[in-house]
Amino acid sequence: MPAAPSPNFRIKIRVKYKNTPEMFLSIVEAITKTGGSIESTNVVSIELNDIIRDIIIDNSSYENAHSAAESVKSLSGIEVIDVCDSIFEMHTGGKIEIKCKSPLISRDDLSMAYTPGVARVSKALAENPSLGHTYTIRRNMIAVVSDGSAVLGLGNIGPLGAMPVMEGKAMLFKEFGGVDAFPICLDTQDSDEIVSIVKALSPVFGGINLEDISAPRCFDIEERLIKELDIPVFHDDQHGTAAVVLAALINASKIVGKKIEEMTAVVSGAGAAGIACTKALMAMGIADIIVCDTKGSIYDGRKEGMNSAKEYLAKKTNKNVKVGSLKDCLTGADLLLGVSGPGLLNGEDLKVMAEDAIVFALSNPIPEVMPEEAMPYIKVMATGRSDYPNQINNVLCFPGLFRGLLDSGAVKVTGEMVVAAGKAIAAQVAPNELSVDYIIPSVFNKKVAPAVAEAVSNTAIDSGLIREYVQKEF
Amino acid sequence: MPAAPSPNFRIKIRVKYKNTPEMFLSIVEAITKTGGSIESTNVVSIELNDIIRDIIIDNSSYENAHSAAESVKSLSGIEVIDVCDSIFEMHTGGKIEIKCKSPLISRDDLSMAYTPGVARVSKALAENPSLGHTYTIRRNMIAVVSDGSAVLGLGNIGPLGAMPVMEGKAMLFKEFGGVDAFPICLDTQDSDEIVSIVKALSPVFGGINLEDISAPRCFDIEERLIKELDIPVFHDDQHGTAAVVLAALINASKIVGKKIEEMTAVVSGAGAAGIACTKALMAMGIADIIVCDTKGSIYDGRKEGMNSAKEYLAKKTNKNVKVGSLKDCLTGADLLLGVSGPGLLNGEDLKVMAEDAIVFALSNPIPEVMPEEAMPYIKVMATGRSDYPNQINNVLCFPGLFRGLLDSGAVKVTGEMVVAAGKAIAAQVAPNELSVDYIIPSVFNKKVAPAVAEAVSNTAIDSGLIREYVQKEF
Repeated sequence: MPAAPSPNFRIKIRVKYKNTPEMFLSIVEAITKTGGSIESTNVVSIELNDIIRDIIIDNSSYENAHSAAESVKSLSGIEVIDVCDSIFEMHTGGKIEIKCKSPLISRDDLSMAYTPGVARVSKALAENPSLGHTYTIRRNMIAVVSDGSAVLGLGNIGPLGAMPVMEGKAMLFKEFGGVDAFPICLDTQDSDEIVSIVKALSPVFGGINLEDISAPRCFDIEERLIKELDIPVFHDDQHGTAAVVLAALINASKIVGKKIEEMTAVVSGAGAAGIACTKALMAMGIADIIVCDTKGSIYDGRKEGMNSAKEYLAKKTNKNVKVGSLKDCLTGADLLLGVSGPGLLNGEDLKVMAEDAIVFALSNPIPEVMPEEAMPYIKVMATGRSDYPNQINNVLCFPGLFRGLLDSGAVKVTGEMVVAAGKAIAAQVAPNELSVDYIIPSVFNKKVAPAVAEAVSNTAIDSGLIREYVQKEF
Repeated sequence: MPAAPSPNFRIKIRVKYKNTPEMFLSIVEAITKTGGSIESTNVVSIELNDIIRDIIIDNSSYENAHSAAESVKSLSGIEVIDVCDSIFEMHTGGKIEIKCKSPLISRDDLSMAYTPGVARVSKALAENPSLGHTYTIRRNMIAVVSDGSAVLGLGNIGPLGAMPVMEGKAMLFKEFGGVDAFPICLDTQDSDEIVSIVKALSPVFGGINLEDISAPRCFDIEERLIKELDIPVFHDDQHGTAAVVLAALINASKIVGKKIEEMTAVVSGAGAAGIACTKALMAMGIADIIVCDTKGSIYDGRKEGMNSAKEYLAKKTNKNVKVGSLKDCLTGADLLLGVSGPGLLNGEDLKVMAEDAIVFALSNPIPEVMPEEAMPYIKVMATGRSDYPNQINNVLCFPGLFRGLLDSGAVKVTGEMVVAAGKAIAAQVAPNELSVDYIIPSVFNKKVAPAVAEAVSNTAIDSGLIREYVQKEF
């Protein structure tokens, strides 16, 4: 199946030509025959007979985008002024900026926001550090910390390669949760150094979102930071994924009419997401889980390819000590959760699962098994993709979660808060809306983030793990 | 002389009372008799006979602000609903925030700014790191780095106390130079650690502005970062001050009709600013300089209270090896530059200076010598204060300087660029405007930053110390 044209391969072609409907038609024809899809056209200028237009074209690949451009260039009577790659154009100069929250127009503004007035605030904070959460950006600013060691599906591409992702993440935090987030992409992959840098940076931030740090280093870094800091530390690849998977499972279980405590699951993937989701499923009381990595099932006694996280799983999961491949383990499973790699399974492999099975295949962009192949054999399917039903996307969790943490003054994130977030996400699908194709709300559902924030905030307050936002007495 | 009411001690009193002109008069009387000055009043609501008003009052001290509040509270028929400290109010939640540069409304937006589209940008940057300066926030984002060891005149108040100052600095960068700046206040004062943290953070930033780091550590940190990074590193307390002092000196020398190369100077203070200004004066070819610290003049052979920076000065300045106190050294000097502490001198001490002497007394808020005392004995006076003529304020330099560095793609800041900035600032005072009371442009002069940016950018380009902003080829 050829890919559909998408904004992922969008280009903008600026053309100049004699302004006739026929000329425009010939341009559209030239683009259409390459498989390009015109997203929009804008007039740049009209002078005498000539028109200059921008034509925005979605394509199905980088090569197709080139074909579209070449096809237009080959037309006679058309001058191609410029061709640009729209995604690179929108990244030019970066995607976020700093904004002042109050004007700096008068001498009074200057003397209150800066010297001499600021000195009174500085002194107060030095004397009483707890005021820092009220009177600095800490109140609403978190760090999105990555070392670039496991970025998206791209692997270890380093801190500079991670920057566009972390800037994008900062946009999502702001847009969906009203949380200010700043990308901290570190030019080191030494765990000790990462821990000490984040500690040193902590006076600036009210929370730490770890992102795209490779397993098992991420577990150690997270654990040490949680211990050493009095602000919430959250590894989104782990717990954000777990929260949204929980949400999907809660609603899917209603559709298949099974209780979570009576289900068995197979988890494909023992990286950050796999391990966190497994722990979350255990917290939900699921009957049994078998976790598989590239070497097959993880079981008590396995020697090959283990690490401390997998040792933990070996003790806590796979009650019947099943030894075998991912496919072998699927027999009788109610749930398959894939957080591993593309195309590991085909539809027929799922035949052996229990009746009305649930499959969450989150490898992105290519799932562990494609929905078209899986659906004949199972009941409910979710992926990480926006072009299939039931998209499991972390953006449903992290903006609202940090909104709730900052609102409540939470000093740490607990498993309870992650579960509360998952339940709040699930609850945004009303009983009468729930269907096989709709177990999880849309990422653009504006009710999700506030609901998650409220659930997390309430859980934090109930747990007592909060600080008060102290005000300076006059 | 009692201090004048200022926004530094501004409060907002919210009062409710029966809406008559007499009642309002009684409030104004109550405030005025404490020395408070009403800056503005705003109606919050009017209902039946009652009015609720906010009254904004400038006071001359924190104690006076309290008196004003108490005075209003003591009136009968007035309910004081709330009293708040305006500076703390404007600091609530911090002074800067993150803003997305493009909308995130549609699935297309999401897939271009985040996954899957962002992956193409990340891959390109990982393969060709020079693209990072074009396609990430590095293009316009600098770090304002402090360890809180020498904040304003407050001393070593730590990173949290430094935060409001660095947030304010970030506001100035944005407002005056269009430069995005983020406060990096570090919870460590270990020079090695600061250097390694800033290095690790460098993928995020296009420049580093060091700020309020104590001497002599600041010299070492700056020097090592310059050596190790390929982005400009600038210690504003040193070179920003030097640039503005140069600007003031260029114009002051015209007024007194002396050539800089024929002047001698005394510098009071051998901290970051003192040492940098001394070097800048030497670069301008000044005839001789004597630098004094708390132990008196620095000379070749002095043993007490020296460090590497002072050893350097001992070799390069004080040609006649003058040994003595600050007052002793003033005899015959054409210029006194104070970058030390409050009230070290009185007017009479300046009697011994050369005819038509120039005094820049930059200790803030209280200068080394007050203008009222100094003026009978000298010709031109400048301070760091906004309430006297000729305010020497770094904000004249740093926003435009970094604007120029980022625009040109400068890989480092040189002394030449600092001198270019100083000359550009001086040139904003036109020959027909130049007077004893106007040797330096206003901080609100909108022409200054662009002029500084252009001068710095041109100097960087001429020096060849620049990078090209590479674009990805389509």
